[in-house]
Amino acid sequence: MNFGINLSFAVKRWPEPEIWAKMVRETMGIEQVQFTFDLLDPWTPEPMRSSMAEKISQSTMNWGVRIESAFCGLASYTYNNLLHPDIDGRRISIEWWKRAMDLTVKIGSSIVGGPLGGMSITDAANTDRKKNLYDILLDEITELTHIAKTSGIKKFHIECTPLNREIPYSIEQAKGLINDIANRCEVPVEFLIDVGHALYQPLYGEKADLNKWLRALNPHIGAFHLQNTDYQSDSHWGWPNSRGIFDVALFVKQLQNANLQDIPCFLEIIYPFEMDDEEVKRNVISSVQHCKKYFV
Amino acid sequence: MNFGINLSFAVKRWPEPEIWAKMVRETMGIEQVQFTFDLLDPWTPEPMRSSMAEKISQSTMNWGVRIESAFCGLASYTYNNLLHPDIDGRRISIEWWKRAMDLTVKIGSSIVGGPLGGMSITDAANTDRKKNLYDILLDEITELTHIAKTSGIKKFHIECTPLNREIPYSIEQAKGLINDIANRCEVPVEFLIDVGHALYQPLYGEKADLNKWLRALNPHIGAFHLQNTDYQSDSHWGWPNSRGIFDVALFVKQLQNANLQDIPCFLEIIYPFEMDDEEVKRNVISSVQHCKKYFV
Repeated sequence: MNFGINLSFAVKRWPEPEIWAKMVRETMGIEQVQFTFDLLDPWTPEPMRSSMAEKISQSTMNWGVRIESAFCGLASYTYNNLLHPDIDGRRISIEWWKRAMDLTVKIGSSIVGGPLGGMSITDAANTDRKKNLYDILLDEITELTHIAKTSGIKKFHIECTPLNREIPYSIEQAKGLINDIANRCEVPVEFLIDVGHALYQPLYGEKADLNKWLRALNPHIGAFHLQNTDYQSDSHWGWPNSRGIFDVALFVKQLQNANLQDIPCFLEIIYPFEMDDEEVKRNVISSVQHCKKYFV
Repeated sequence: MNFGINLSFAVKRWPEPEIWAKMVRETMGIEQVQFTFDLLDPWTPEPMRSSMAEKISQSTMNWGVRIESAFCGLASYTYNNLLHPDIDGRRISIEWWKRAMDLTVKIGSSIVGGPLGGMSITDAANTDRKKNLYDILLDEITELTHIAKTSGIKKFHIECTPLNREIPYSIEQAKGLINDIANRCEVPVEFLIDVGHALYQPLYGEKADLNKWLRALNPHIGAFHLQNTDYQSDSHWGWPNSRGIFDVALFVKQLQNANLQDIPCFLEIIYPFEMDDEEVKRNVISSVQHCKKYFV
C-alpha cells in the first residue's frame, strides 16, 4: 500500500517546514507527503518564492520526507480558474498554474495537480456556452501540459469534484475528458479521486459507489485523497469524528480488488481555522494511526 | 442604519460583475457592497488586474451599486500573512497588501481591510517570540498605512478574529493595538467587528457579549460583519438556518444604544462550495429580507 498525508493539516498552525517535516516523520512515521499550495501561494513573487521553496526542500531532505506531488488547496479553489466566465479570468488561472509548476519543481517534486475550475451558474445554465467552455478547457489542458513539460513537470493530476458546474464531476465526464485530450498532451494526465467527493450523496444519490469510479477510470487514476465524511458534505474530517462514517478497511479492500493498491493515497483533513490547536493535533495523530492500521 | 452585503455570497456562483451587481440592486434592493478579494485575487498580474477591475467598476456604475470597501476573504485568510514565522513569508504579505490596495482603488473604493495574520503554534507558545512578532506587526501596519496613503486609500480596516494566535483577537488586545499605533499611521486605522467572531464561545466563554466590544472600541469601529451563528463556530450562516440563533433585532438595538447605527454593517454569508445553487440563492435572498426588516 502507498500511504501519505496532504499537508493541509499544517496550514496556519505549523507553517515552518522544519516543524511539519519533523511532525510527519517523527510523530506520524510517514515518509511521503503531498504539498499543499495553502502553505505557500504560487503567486509569491521572487525572490521570496525561491527562498521559501529552498527552505521547504532543505527541511524535507533533513527529515527524510519525500514530496510526492504538490496540490491545490482551499485558497486556489476559491476562484473559478480555468472555467472563469471571462477570458481574462481564465488567463489568470493559466498564469497561476505556470507559477505553481515552477514552485513544484523548486520544492523537489515533479507531479502537480488540482481541480480545474468552476463555471458560473449563468454559464452552466446555457448549453452552448457550456460546450464552448468545455472546448476551451481542452485547449487549456493542452497548454498546461506544454508548460508542464517545459517546467520539468512529469505528470499533471486532475481532481474530480462533487459540483456539476465543475469539470470533471462525474465518471462519465471524466472518461469523456480523458478521451478528448488523448494525444494532445505533452505530459501524462491522470485523475486524483477524493473518496469524499465520489461518495457525496446530495449530488450522486444514495447509490454513490466508489467501486464504479475505480473500475471505470482504473488506468487513469494517479492518486487518492482520503477523508472521513458523512456523505452529506465535502467533510474532510479525521478520525474520530462523531458524524464521520467512512470505512477505511473497506476502501483498502476496494483498492486491492481494483489492483490500485500501489497508487499513492493522501489523507487530506481540513480543520476549521478557529478549532482548538490541541484538539487538532490530537485528531491529526489519531487519524493517521487509524488509517495506517489498514494501509500496511 | 447603514446596511450592505459582502460579495462572499457571489463567489464562484455569480462571478460576473454584471450579474452580481444586478442581483444586489434589483433582487436584494441593496445599494452598498463590500467587495471580497475572493472574487478577484489581488495577486492577479497586469494587464488582467486592470481589465478585470475596469469591468467591476463599470458594472457597479451601470447598476448604481457603490463599493464601500474591499475586504479579505477565505483565500487570503488561508495564509499566516503579516504574522508568518518567516521574514520572507511576512514580505509576501506586504506585497499582497500593496496589490490589494491598488486593486481597491481601481474598482473605485478607498477603504480596504481584513484580518492581519496568524502566528504559528510554535511562535504563539514562546513569550519572547510573541512580543517580537507583535512589535514587527506594529511596524508592518505603519508600512501598510504608508503604502495606503501613496495608493489613494483613505482608511485601513483591521478585522478582529476569534483565534488567540491572531492579532487582535480580544477587546484588550485591540485597545492595546490602537494605542500602540497611534501617531504612527498615515491613514486612519479602524476595526471591523464580525458579530460571529465576537460571540464565539469556545474562546470567549458563555458570557461573550457584543456590548462589551461596542463600548470598549466604540470610536475605533469602522464596520461590521453580520452573520447567523450558533456561537460554537465561525459559522457565517444565513437565515433561515436550523442551528443559527443570532438575533438581528437585538443587535440593531445594541448598535443604536452604542450610537453606532451609522457605521456600515455588511451581511457576510459563506456557503459550502458544494451546496446546491438554488438553495444558496433562496437563502441569500431570505437572509437579506430578514436583516432588512431590522435595518430600517
